[in-house]
Amino acid sequence: MQWYFVAALLTILTSSQGILTTLSQTNGRYMYDYATIPFLAEVFKLVVSSVLLWRECQVSPSTRMTTEWKSVRLYPIPSVIYLIHNNVQFATLTYVDTSTYQIMGNLKIVTTGILFRLFLRRKLSNLQWMAIILLAIGTTTSQIKGCGEASCDSLFSAPIQGYMLGILSACLSASAGVYTEFLMKKNNDSLYWQNVQLYTFGAIFNMARLVVDDFRGGFENGPWWHRIFDGYSITTWMVVLNLGSTGLLVSWLMKYADNIVKVYSTSMAMLLTMVLSVYLFNFKPTLQLFLGIFICMMSLHMYFAPPNMLVDLPSTTKAAPESLKEVCVGRRTDS
Amino acid sequence: MQWYFVAALLTILTSSQGILTTLSQTNGRYMYDYATIPFLAEVFKLVVSSVLLWRECQVSPSTRMTTEWKSVRLYPIPSVIYLIHNNVQFATLTYVDTSTYQIMGNLKIVTTGILFRLFLRRKLSNLQWMAIILLAIGTTTSQIKGCGEASCDSLFSAPIQGYMLGILSACLSASAGVYTEFLMKKNNDSLYWQNVQLYTFGAIFNMARLVVDDFRGGFENGPWWHRIFDGYSITTWMVVLNLGSTGLLVSWLMKYADNIVKVYSTSMAMLLTMVLSVYLFNFKPTLQLFLGIFICMMSLHMYFAPPNMLVDLPSTTKAAPESLKEVCVGRRTDS
Repeated sequence: MQWYFVAALLTILTSSQGILTTLSQTNGRYMYDYATIPFLAEVFKLVVSSVLLWRECQVSPSTRMTTEWKSVRLYPIPSVIYLIHNNVQFATLTYVDTSTYQIMGNLKIVTTGILFRLFLRRKLSNLQWMAIILLAIGTTTSQIKGCGEASCDSLFSAPIQGYMLGILSACLSASAGVYTEFLMKKNNDSLYWQNVQLYTFGAIFNMARLVVDDFRGGFENGPWWHRIFDGYSITTWMVVLNLGSTGLLVSWLMKYADNIVKVYSTSMAMLLTMVLSVYLFNFKPTLQLFLGIFICMMSLHMYFAPPNMLVDLPSTTKAAPESLKEVCVGRRTDS
Repeated sequence: MQWYFVAALLTILTSSQGILTTLSQTNGRYMYDYATIPFLAEVFKLVVSSVLLWRECQVSPSTRMTTEWKSVRLYPIPSVIYLIHNNVQFATLTYVDTSTYQIMGNLKIVTTGILFRLFLRRKLSNLQWMAIILLAIGTTTSQIKGCGEASCDSLFSAPIQGYMLGILSACLSASAGVYTEFLMKKNNDSLYWQNVQLYTFGAIFNMARLVVDDFRGGFENGPWWHRIFDGYSITTWMVVLNLGSTGLLVSWLMKYADNIVKVYSTSMAMLLTMVLSVYLFNFKPTLQLFLGIFICMMSLHMYFAPPNMLVDLPSTTKAAPESLKEVCVGRRTDS
C-alpha cells in the first residue's frame, strides 16, 4: 500500500466527515449527543485493530508486541494532550469569535512543521519550509470572509490572551501529532498492537468525558449508557464509521509516512469540503476559495515533487540577468 | 550598476507614483489635465536620454547607433500597442467594474511570463513558473475586498465580453513589455540612443492624444499648449519627474535585466503602496494584504534564489516517505 493512496483516501474521508456531520443535523442542530461520536469512533477503531491484530498473530506468530509497562504507559499521552487541547480551545473561544478561531487554526500547519523538525529531528529543505508556510497561507486565504459576512473589526481586535491561547492550541495540536508519530515509529511493534493500546486509552478518556458531562448535567437525562444512541440516524452511524476510519488511516500514516503528509491530506480535505459545499449546500464560491486552492496545489507540488523536476531548466539557453549585459543578443531578432 | 539595485529603486519610485498621484489631488479630484502628465514625462525622458547620449558620444566616439529606417521604424510599435491597450481598457470598463478590472490586471503577470517564453525563447524552470503564478495570486489576494466593501455579486457575474477584453488587455500589456525587451536587446546600440528613439515616438503619440482630446472637447478651453500647466502644483511636477524616472529605469531593466524582473518590481511596488497607505491615508490593513505580501515574498525567493539553496537538505538524514516503511526507526527513540 503506497502512502499517497492512503493520503488520498484520508482526504476523501476527512472531507466526507464535514459533509456527513452537516447532513446528520436536523434543522441545523444535533438530535443526538455529539460527545458520543468520538467515543463510539474510538470503540470502532479498537474493535477493528483488535481483529486485525488477532489475524496477524494467526498468520505470523513472530508479530512484535512490546508489553512492558515502560512502553505501554506512553500511549495515554496523546489522549491527555487532546484533553488539554479541548480545554484550551474552549478558553480561546471565550476571547475570540469562531471565524478568528478557524483562521488561527491554520497555524497548526506551521507548528507541526516546527515540532516535526525539533522533536523528530527531520530535516526539510528551504523549499519544503516555504511549501508548509504556503499551505497555511492557502488554507487561510480560502477562509477569508467575503460578500457581506466580513466584519469591520480591526485585524487584531481580540484581547491578546485570545491570540496567545490560539498559538498554544496550535502547539498542542501539533505536539499530539508529532508525539503520535514518535510513538508509532519508536520501535517496529505491529501497527495493530500499537493501535490497540492507543485506542484503549482513547476510549477510556472519551468515556470519562461522557461521565463528567453526566455529573455536570446532574444526571438529568439519566446516565450516558442509557441514552447513548438517542436520536441516532443512519447518517449519525456513518459519521461514527467515517471518523473511526479516518483515525485508522492517520495511525497508518504516522507509522509509514509522517505528520506532514497528514497535514497535507487534511488541508486538502478542508478545501474539498468547501468545493463540495458549493454543490451540496449552495455555498457561494468566492475568489479567495479559488486562490486558496491554487496556493495549496502549488504548495503540494513544491513539497513532494522531486527537486530536480522543480529546478532544472528545459535546456541551458537561459542566461542569468546579471550576465545578459555581456551576452550578444543579436540572434534573438529571429524569434 | 547591479540589476537588483535598479529593481529596488523602481519599486520605490513606482510606489511613490501612486502616493504622489493621490497627494496631487485636491478634494479627491485632479485640478490639472491628467493627460498632460504622460506627455511631459515622455519629454523629460527624451531630454535626459538626449543629454546622456551626447555625453556618451563625447566620451567614446565609438558609441553604437543604428540609424537605418529598417531599425528606427520598430520604435513606434510600443506606443502603438499602448494606444490600442488604452482603448481596450476603456472598452473593458464598460463591461466590468473597476475592482474586477483591477483583479484581472494581475493576469498580465502570467501573460508576461508566457510571452517571455514564447517570443524571447527564454527557458524557465518549473519552480520559476510556479513563482510567477504565485506572484499573480499574491497580488490578487492582497486586493480581495474586505470589510463592508465586498459586493455580493457572483464571482463571474460580468458579461463574458468583459472577461475576454480583460484577457486581451493583459496580453497587450505583456506584449508591449516583451516587445520593448526584444527591441532593447536586439543589438548592442547605446541604451541612450534606443531611449531617444523610443521616447521621441512616445512624446509624439502622447501629444497626438492631447490634440485628439482638444478636438473631442471642441477647443472649449483653448488648445492644449495654452493650458498645459494649468492647476500644476509642486506635487504635480513631482508626479511628472517620478513617472519619467520610472520609465528610464524600466528601459534600463529591459536592456540589462528582463521583463520578469520588471514585473516583480512593479508588483512589490503595488504592495508597498498599500502598506504605506495604511500610514498615510488611514487605509485599513486587511488579513488578505498580509497574506498577499507573504505569498509575493515567497514567490520572489522562489524565482531568484539559487536553486541549490532552495532544494538542498541541511544534511542527508531525511528519508523519503515511501522508503520509511523499510527503515528501521528504533533509533529515533533517543530524539
